[in-house]
Amino acid sequence: MEQRILGIDPGLASLGFGAIICQKNQDRVQENSLNLLDFGVINTPANTEIGQRLCTLYDDLHTLIKEFQPELVAIEKFFFYRMANTISIAQARGVIMLVLGQHELPTVEFTPGQIKQALTGYGNAEKQEVQQAVARELNLEYIPHPDDAADALAVALTAWFQI
Amino acid sequence: MEQRILGIDPGLASLGFGAIICQKNQDRVQENSLNLLDFGVINTPANTEIGQRLCTLYDDLHTLIKEFQPELVAIEKFFFYRMANTISIAQARGVIMLVLGQHELPTVEFTPGQIKQALTGYGNAEKQEVQQAVARELNLEYIPHPDDAADALAVALTAWFQI
Repeated sequence: MEQRILGIDPGLASLGFGAIICQKNQDRVQENSLNLLDFGVINTPANTEIGQRLCTLYDDLHTLIKEFQPELVAIEKFFFYRMANTISIAQARGVIMLVLGQHELPTVEFTPGQIKQALTGYGNAEKQEVQQAVARELNLEYIPHPDDAADALAVALTAWFQI
Repeated sequence: MEQRILGIDPGLASLGFGAIICQKNQDRVQENSLNLLDFGVINTPANTEIGQRLCTLYDDLHTLIKEFQPELVAIEKFFFYRMANTISIAQARGVIMLVLGQHELPTVEFTPGQIKQALTGYGNAEKQEVQQAVARELNLEYIPHPDDAADALAVALTAWFQI
């Protein structure tokens, strides 16, 4: 069965997204298939009021979900950065979880360590190694850019490996 | 000019709200007027998925705003509790700020210290003293219950004092 997975790297200033479409064949007669649908970031300008920035996230996330129609959403798990960043990401995450709840979408979460482990085989991999693994898995001749979009594809691929 | 102020005490398990209607007369011929509209809490059950809890907050906040039609919203400013609570409140706050942004509502924020100062005259007042001040200002013969609703009325009154 074909499955669309949307990966999200949560953030307020820059929210990364990456969508893949994949098919796992249990009978091993057919090959598994894995294809890139799209990736990118939702940016919200720092000089705008928080309410307006969250409105942008909310509207753009709804648009993404309508466009990709994912069956599963994978999110990078909450991680404690500096306090100011933590609050800002947690507020963005509130809006993300709201939108996923409104669409009743199944959601899986992975820590940065789990994502590194899944993509490279070890949990302390460098960012570059993870990005190269993303490109390799998706047969891309380039590293997806910007970093937040590559991170979102990495979390989507982590979900795909675990299905 | 009559003004409706909605006070919000942010929270995920229990979000307090308190709405007042007030009129400040510059000419001092007429008395200022201050009346209670309503108060209460939005509860979201802890055993429900985060997405569903945030959907409840989102829907109920929209309903409150349609009902009270506030011209101004006053919120208790973000305060660092234990980390787990901070994340949970920050996620709820993301949804609150989103809804206020969607309604393009002017918002003012006050720290717990500013609220205590405004209501009792000193910033280290006990919770009970603040609650008694809320009841006195609104001519109530009882302390508004539960605490989160009283806190929401306290932040609405703080905004009113500062207009």
